[in-house]
Amino acid sequence: MNSPDKDDILRASSRIASFIHRTPVITSRSINEMLNCSIFFKCENFQKAGAFKYRGATNAIRQLHEEELIHGVATHSSGNHAQALALAAGVRNAKAYIVMPSDAPLIKKNAVVGYGAEVIECEPTLEARETTLDEIVRGKKAHVVHPYNDYRIIAGQATAALELIEDAGLLDVLIAPVGGGGLLSGSSLAVKYFSTGTVVFGAEPEGADDARRSLEKGAIVPSINPRTIADGLLTSLGTKTFPIIKEHVERIFTVPDKAIVAAMKLIWQRMKIVVEPSAAVPLAVVMENKAHFKEKNIGIILSGGNVDLENLPF
Amino acid sequence: MNSPDKDDILRASSRIASFIHRTPVITSRSINEMLNCSIFFKCENFQKAGAFKYRGATNAIRQLHEEELIHGVATHSSGNHAQALALAAGVRNAKAYIVMPSDAPLIKKNAVVGYGAEVIECEPTLEARETTLDEIVRGKKAHVVHPYNDYRIIAGQATAALELIEDAGLLDVLIAPVGGGGLLSGSSLAVKYFSTGTVVFGAEPEGADDARRSLEKGAIVPSINPRTIADGLLTSLGTKTFPIIKEHVERIFTVPDKAIVAAMKLIWQRMKIVVEPSAAVPLAVVMENKAHFKEKNIGIILSGGNVDLENLPF
Repeated sequence: MNSPDKDDILRASSRIASFIHRTPVITSRSINEMLNCSIFFKCENFQKAGAFKYRGATNAIRQLHEEELIHGVATHSSGNHAQALALAAGVRNAKAYIVMPSDAPLIKKNAVVGYGAEVIECEPTLEARETTLDEIVRGKKAHVVHPYNDYRIIAGQATAALELIEDAGLLDVLIAPVGGGGLLSGSSLAVKYFSTGTVVFGAEPEGADDARRSLEKGAIVPSINPRTIADGLLTSLGTKTFPIIKEHVERIFTVPDKAIVAAMKLIWQRMKIVVEPSAAVPLAVVMENKAHFKEKNIGIILSGGNVDLENLPF
Repeated sequence: MNSPDKDDILRASSRIASFIHRTPVITSRSINEMLNCSIFFKCENFQKAGAFKYRGATNAIRQLHEEELIHGVATHSSGNHAQALALAAGVRNAKAYIVMPSDAPLIKKNAVVGYGAEVIECEPTLEARETTLDEIVRGKKAHVVHPYNDYRIIAGQATAALELIEDAGLLDVLIAPVGGGGLLSGSSLAVKYFSTGTVVFGAEPEGADDARRSLEKGAIVPSINPRTIADGLLTSLGTKTFPIIKEHVERIFTVPDKAIVAAMKLIWQRMKIVVEPSAAVPLAVVMENKAHFKEKNIGIILSGGNVDLENLPF
């Protein structure tokens, strides 16, 4: 299978339409005045399971035949993909096996269990996660749905940008956060096919800047000990997401955690909506580079709203 | 002038329509399943200046002639009415004098100043607030706009319930929080004129239960040392709001602060929106009285979203 083309994205959009929320695109006059630009926020914090991840998970699971689903699906994730896959599988009455590191917050484990999935704990290393997932796949014959390195996932995530383009009109710029690159690669493809005049930027925490370094080097540079409050953006680019980003993303902007927290607070205060730190990274990029974005029409994907209210950074 | 009639509310609605946000009515499947009922939330946390108060303030200020506005408007308030009046006056290029107690949070004073109003500080007693306001009115000839004991305010606040009735369809119950009673009295009139089958309840913190006690006694019982996290509901009913509430509100439910915090947290977590404690009181009433509201269609006015993010109760 090749990188998603125009039809793959349109088919993903119609395949998942009745299962997802068409989330609103909202604006804030006070934020626009403060930053001297026009920002259109695509509110994936209101998506089912609380993040855009439900789009990709649904697009993958809807393509499985009944006989494949009998054995269930599996992944390793401590974040939003875990909840998304658990819910998407549950909707099809399929079993989901989610490998989670033993140090994942209890609140996340409970959310996954609440969606009806089975959580398998492992040591908190990437190696242990992959080994444990392999065991599950062999033992249960479950179908693996990777969080981002999967063209079905990329095509599903692309639908958020597609809707944003449809609702916001002509954008000069679209900015998406980048962790493993599923959302950013999908968004860049949506722009390529449906909004040719728009430039795509990635937004990344300084403490987890593997995407910026990978683009500079022209090859995947893995994250080593990433440290950032944006806990959804710790992962490194994948072999399927990197080539798309390399080709279609103009630049990766990085921002310090302090700017991410300031952007998150601004969104909560002015827009009265709950977003997680990772979702605030694109606005932090605009706040830290006002001259660059002056008088531009900017689309921003607010990626998710799953935040632990008992551990807020302000 | 008499208590607002049907035409007063319809005229208020058309008078303010182009100046306010028509806020969305949203639902949450998980909250409905948890509570076994259907709740329609009217999101006044998304209203301009962050609360329903902007409706009443705008309805009052839009009725003033240019020559009245020359001298400006004035009120005493440490809360959402202060911001609402400041903004509504600013939109008409009129001066607003806001008397605030010296112990009001700096964040609230700054918000009022940010809307272009002049803050006059006084001692933190009701007597000092009223005396200081009297001085302003005499000295500046400013026009007083009371936070709730004013039929223009009541008619303005009624428009939130009117829109909720239009958007949600047939409601068995409508619940609004009650402090001074502007929102609750207005809501009860909107239901009387536009949704005759609906029963109206007030929602009040146990620690500021003057409305419940006033209805029981049949006369206004002032709040004495009210203590609650719902800082928008500390005031007592007024001579104009009480008779309307007495006639048209079925009952006042009271809830402890613990239930208010739990309801607020549930709204933030499940609906991903920011509401202030006062706005969560009606949902707390449903959570504490599940059997009473079983299988009902319930309209709830989420009154506002102005909360100090650095002092959250969780």
